[in-house]
Amino acid sequence: MKRALFEQDHDIFRDSFRKFCQEEVLPHQERWIEQGIVDREVWEKAGEHGFLVPFVEEEFGGLGLDDFRYAQVMIEELARIGESGFALSLHNDVIAPYLHTYGTAEQKARYLPGVASGKTILAIAMTEPGTGSDLQAMKTSLEDQGDHYILNGQKTFISNGILADLVIVAAKSKEGVTLVLVERGMEGFERGRNLKKMGMKAQDTAELFFENVRVPKENVLGQPGMGFMYLMQKLAQERLVCAVGAIAGAWFAFDETLKYVKERTAFGKPIGKFQNTRFKMAEMKTEITIGQHFVDNLVQQHLRGEVTPEEACMAKYWTTDLVNKVVDEGVQLHGGYGYMDEYPICRAYTDARITRIFAGTNEIMKEVIGRGMGL
Amino acid sequence: MKRALFEQDHDIFRDSFRKFCQEEVLPHQERWIEQGIVDREVWEKAGEHGFLVPFVEEEFGGLGLDDFRYAQVMIEELARIGESGFALSLHNDVIAPYLHTYGTAEQKARYLPGVASGKTILAIAMTEPGTGSDLQAMKTSLEDQGDHYILNGQKTFISNGILADLVIVAAKSKEGVTLVLVERGMEGFERGRNLKKMGMKAQDTAELFFENVRVPKENVLGQPGMGFMYLMQKLAQERLVCAVGAIAGAWFAFDETLKYVKERTAFGKPIGKFQNTRFKMAEMKTEITIGQHFVDNLVQQHLRGEVTPEEACMAKYWTTDLVNKVVDEGVQLHGGYGYMDEYPICRAYTDARITRIFAGTNEIMKEVIGRGMGL
Amino acid sequence: MKRALFEQDHDIFRDSFRKFCQEEVLPHQERWIEQGIVDREVWEKAGEHGFLVPFVEEEFGGLGLDDFRYAQVMIEELARIGESGFALSLHNDVIAPYLHTYGTAEQKARYLPGVASGKTILAIAMTEPGTGSDLQAMKTSLEDQGDHYILNGQKTFISNGILADLVIVAAKSKEGVTLVLVERGMEGFERGRNLKKMGMKAQDTAELFFENVRVPKENVLGQPGMGFMYLMQKLAQERLVCAVGAIAGAWFAFDETLKYVKERTAFGKPIGKFQNTRFKMAEMKTEITIGQHFVDNLVQQHLRGEVTPEEACMAKYWTTDLVNKVVDEGVQLHGGYGYMDEYPICRAYTDARITRIFAGTNEIMKEVIGRGMGL
Amino acid sequence: MKRALFEQDHDIFRDSFRKFCQEEVLPHQERWIEQGIVDREVWEKAGEHGFLVPFVEEEFGGLGLDDFRYAQVMIEELARIGESGFALSLHNDVIAPYLHTYGTAEQKARYLPGVASGKTILAIAMTEPGTGSDLQAMKTSLEDQGDHYILNGQKTFISNGILADLVIVAAKSKEGVTLVLVERGMEGFERGRNLKKMGMKAQDTAELFFENVRVPKENVLGQPGMGFMYLMQKLAQERLVCAVGAIAGAWFAFDETLKYVKERTAFGKPIGKFQNTRFKMAEMKTEITIGQHFVDNLVQQHLRGEVTPEEACMAKYWTTDLVNKVVDEGVQLHGGYGYMDEYPICRAYTDARITRIFAGTNEIMKEVIGRGMGL
Repeated sequence: MKRALFEQDHDIFRDSFRKFCQEEVLPHQERWIEQGIVDREVWEKAGEHGFLVPFVEEEFGGLGLDDFRYAQVMIEELARIGESGFALSLHNDVIAPYLHTYGTAEQKARYLPGVASGKTILAIAMTEPGTGSDLQAMKTSLEDQGDHYILNGQKTFISNGILADLVIVAAKSKEGVTLVLVERGMEGFERGRNLKKMGMKAQDTAELFFENVRVPKENVLGQPGMGFMYLMQKLAQERLVCAVGAIAGAWFAFDETLKYVKERTAFGKPIGKFQNTRFKMAEMKTEITIGQHFVDNLVQQHLRGEVTPEEACMAKYWTTDLVNKVVDEGVQLHGGYGYMDEYPICRAYTDARITRIFAGTNEIMKEVIGRGMGL
Repeated sequence: MKRALFEQDHDIFRDSFRKFCQEEVLPHQERWIEQGIVDREVWEKAGEHGFLVPFVEEEFGGLGLDDFRYAQVMIEELARIGESGFALSLHNDVIAPYLHTYGTAEQKARYLPGVASGKTILAIAMTEPGTGSDLQAMKTSLEDQGDHYILNGQKTFISNGILADLVIVAAKSKEGVTLVLVERGMEGFERGRNLKKMGMKAQDTAELFFENVRVPKENVLGQPGMGFMYLMQKLAQERLVCAVGAIAGAWFAFDETLKYVKERTAFGKPIGKFQNTRFKMAEMKTEITIGQHFVDNLVQQHLRGEVTPEEACMAKYWTTDLVNKVVDEGVQLHGGYGYMDEYPICRAYTDARITRIFAGTNEIMKEVIGRGMGL
Repeated sequence: MKRALFEQDHDIFRDSFRKFCQEEVLPHQERWIEQGIVDREVWEKAGEHGFLVPFVEEEFGGLGLDDFRYAQVMIEELARIGESGFALSLHNDVIAPYLHTYGTAEQKARYLPGVASGKTILAIAMTEPGTGSDLQAMKTSLEDQGDHYILNGQKTFISNGILADLVIVAAKSKEGVTLVLVERGMEGFERGRNLKKMGMKAQDTAELFFENVRVPKENVLGQPGMGFMYLMQKLAQERLVCAVGAIAGAWFAFDETLKYVKERTAFGKPIGKFQNTRFKMAEMKTEITIGQHFVDNLVQQHLRGEVTPEEACMAKYWTTDLVNKVVDEGVQLHGGYGYMDEYPICRAYTDARITRIFAGTNEIMKEVIGRGMGL
Repeated sequence: MKRALFEQDHDIFRDSFRKFCQEEVLPHQERWIEQGIVDREVWEKAGEHGFLVPFVEEEFGGLGLDDFRYAQVMIEELARIGESGFALSLHNDVIAPYLHTYGTAEQKARYLPGVASGKTILAIAMTEPGTGSDLQAMKTSLEDQGDHYILNGQKTFISNGILADLVIVAAKSKEGVTLVLVERGMEGFERGRNLKKMGMKAQDTAELFFENVRVPKENVLGQPGMGFMYLMQKLAQERLVCAVGAIAGAWFAFDETLKYVKERTAFGKPIGKFQNTRFKMAEMKTEITIGQHFVDNLVQQHLRGEVTPEEACMAKYWTTDLVNKVVDEGVQLHGGYGYMDEYPICRAYTDARITRIFAGTNEIMKEVIGRGMGL
């Protein structure tokens, strides 16, 4: 399909980022999976090339490219090599915006240059063992001690949990949910082991423990008690990021499968020539195409600030359901090879499974959409 | 959802056509269903208001509005009152374009003014009892007699079959499939009974019989033997028409259902407040929204002549599957009332069922899409 | 598939009932559909042959064949000729058991002989315009006047509503829900029009109105206030009846479709030879076979009184979902003919749609099953 | 659900095998997954307890319990602790029967005692890199050298590939497909690495290489050229094994999920109390129950040798589709925990994925069923 979205600058940027992926990501993928974490070096190299937080102003180390389409390009290119460990978009598009929007000039001057260079890898810590999508049940506490806070609690499923140098932690202070910036090395801040997951094996995911961590008041992000509202405001972009990635991941799985069914023969012809295969491929291509149209339209709306929470939820749930259907059919059409780790479709299958759960489960998405209709 | 597609002129046109629907269609719907056919008067009134073939040049009776969005507006407005009998779009957007594109100046001068005024209602006769989607198996024959042809054969499932004054008939001449214009009253041209169908009960559908019909050579449309190619060229718009109608029909069914689940209570609360209902409504709204984005994008491409056959097939199959899912869920959420003829959702259910079959079954759509990938 | 369920007597009975269907049902189907109601004569002829309430003791006019498999045989045979108007099983297996279980000796002596002869056609009136599955919201009232009750209220969607001579009406007395026997001709008991439905067009369905109907106390069925419990106790058999009918209806639709796809050719071969068709047929046959095993096992449990409410709900929802899938696929494989009234698959499609709604919607079934797990 | 299938002896056997699983399997599961292979000791311990090939006559080391229900019990018990590495049933129910049915008295005397004691672990080698379900495309060759054969070729996806002491290899001799018995240590027989798979991580799966392996003629199993027929004859039981395992695996995933949704709370109540959860659980329980009825009925037919190839295919495809639906929903209801390796549902998800592919893909099953209808 032709895409109406991109201009020449985006195409140039895409070429450049694709080259980066070929040189700095692809050759390391196997090793990163083995070690359960990507190298810090890739972050720093990305920083050198300007691929970290390009939307940030030049004074803070960015490129001043405040255009979500650059983010989209990078998400797509990583998806199209099946890279699920290098959490570039989480850093750039999900977490850094909190700092950028709600940070003081001092906080931005202090942290953003590292964020842009790759010296300061970001994580955000919302989920707790006892709470998933239900943020109100949060137990992590922030006790006001006059000039500082004392942070106590435990977070889980934190992406970049091992790598992160700076963690935005949501905790309950007397004002309500408050976001604070916790830095590597603060006393009382410990990380659990790198969790073993079904897929996304090169992305480090960890529990974080906070035991009487002393957090200076200048490390509060925005106003105390406003954390919940901030999270809500940033969710639309996060969910759009999920949708962009899901569609790109679906194309990746589709392309791998198309190649396979054209090459592989059974009963004397390529398996793609069987009507069942042809129909399945046609259904997949149709739905991915439709999803791409929707996501591209939303990106255009997002450039104008016009995506509603409901639309972001629609995109997130539908595209992540879709990528799961596509990888499932892709595995099936690969037959036994689809079950072998070395085939990209095999990893795509397990990588995709989390997408229906993270960033708000797809059930939560339907709640939001349903409530938007007054139901 | 906001729609980026329409400009002010389209909105004005929509208001005007909506008024026409309220005044000239809605009050007659029950009666038309009872009689199995719409009144000729509605065609003539539509003609008077300029709603017939507005894309045709003024010299031939049209408005010179060569913009598919006017067609889209009319399809949507008819769908949104659940009107499935008045085959305006079939006449305007599916059949008239054959005359307009392939007709000679004489043919256009002779027929188009009646087509625009509603005096000449159109039908197209492709399907035969022994052939459905397989046009190559056509048996209707056109025997060259020097200055005229003799047409023999039988067609079935012809929409507007009873009302039609002018029928474009596909038949096999020695050159291949040829299109000829058969007029009401030609000797040997007979209509069968108005077929009883599951739904779309106000639209007359009939068998047509041709027994030694003498067809003057000036009634050949385009070149002899080119019929198959002409049909292929016009299919993209026909399938887009189906998709536009399917999405609009889905919105209609959705809106009826949303209204119902908000009003109807069970176990002490509106049934829309049950999570299952909320989720089903959210899923429907999501898929219709996504489908609308896709269709609107395709309409924009179509304005530039850039819709591929594969894209038209994607839109046709996916949206017609969708409207069937929506009416099915809509009936279910209406409970027993969904099964009662007087509820619009009941008729929407049976009306929708044909859409997965007509204009090429959805299986044929998948064949086309699959072959487009080399499978 | 071989069925382990039936013994020789059932096979003989099946032959006899099949002959009855061929002679007394099949020739009238079209006319019954036209008139929207079956003839009273078929009820009386069924009575003469012993096909009405055979489980009832001979003293009350039955055959003393207390074996649900005879009911199953009759449901299956009617389904296999696509008969949806003659509500034999409703009369025999759903309504008569109330009389038989909860009736006094006098009530049984008074009514059952007519029920067995076909002179007294039965209906049961639970649903009201404002209540569907929510029986607690019932508004029909029964006011105690000492030696009689006064019945006021309105019921809807009553099968056999026009034909019925005896109606078991659920109403609220001071003790709770009470069942009373209302006879044709009681003053103040009126019937509305025969409702126009999507399908099941030969089965009369009506609203019933009760305005100050004087109901003698001897017309109370069982204990006052126990109606809700009685309804609950009889639901398992009613739902099993639905399941037996749904599977039989699915076989009917499957068989019609199999015949069609073997005969009909397209692109030079029977459409059954296309892989997509073969797969769809294989899926249908598999699911119907599995459903038949389940239903037959439940019937065997039912003979021993061992079907749980949850199992009955499982059978009802799953088999009715299934028959709807099967008729939908059947219509699709029939192409345009599937949309024509004269094809059995067309009527099967609209007949099937109500089954997911009646006898407790399938959503209610899932509630019951879910609650049975403590959820 | 009550199961009509088992008698007291089976229940006693189940208790005994369950105890074995608790003591000899459960404590090693994590380690086996880590090492990618189970210990040989578990095979020998199973042999000591009589759990290996109990159907084999006592003279050959078995228990003479020729009753498939003992196999079913063991498959179920392993499934219910989520054990997917210890390929007991493959050895007992899929491979040993070839030896038992087609082996000569000498072969049986030579091999079966080891098979029963666990000293001789079995594998069967059919699939080749270039052939999946298409056995006719087999390339492995068996060249007749007078008193012996020379075997050349390569097999892949061989379960027990590393552990196996005796491999039944299908190869092409001049007579057609022939089965030969290849023993550990024969010159020219090499194993590839233990393949890394999506799931079933404790089951060793390997490529096998045969380079000029000298196979004595007494190692031919049955008649030369009859291999294809033998494979066909044993497929019904293999597919029934899959179905038994799939249903048992589905119960396991269901039970894990039910426990989770009762314990885990969100928004102030157990997540099982949300209607969406309740409905999903109800749907799963329904389908697993229905599948269990079907499988148990087929097992009863199998005891009488009455399962048709079509029925075996129905059971295999439908139950393996089902277990995949169940594990998918189970993961979703577990939220983020469902993605964590340590949760049984996570492993069940990846373990289940192969079942739609192995023992003939589900597409092949539909081919067989479809052809059985003459399509």
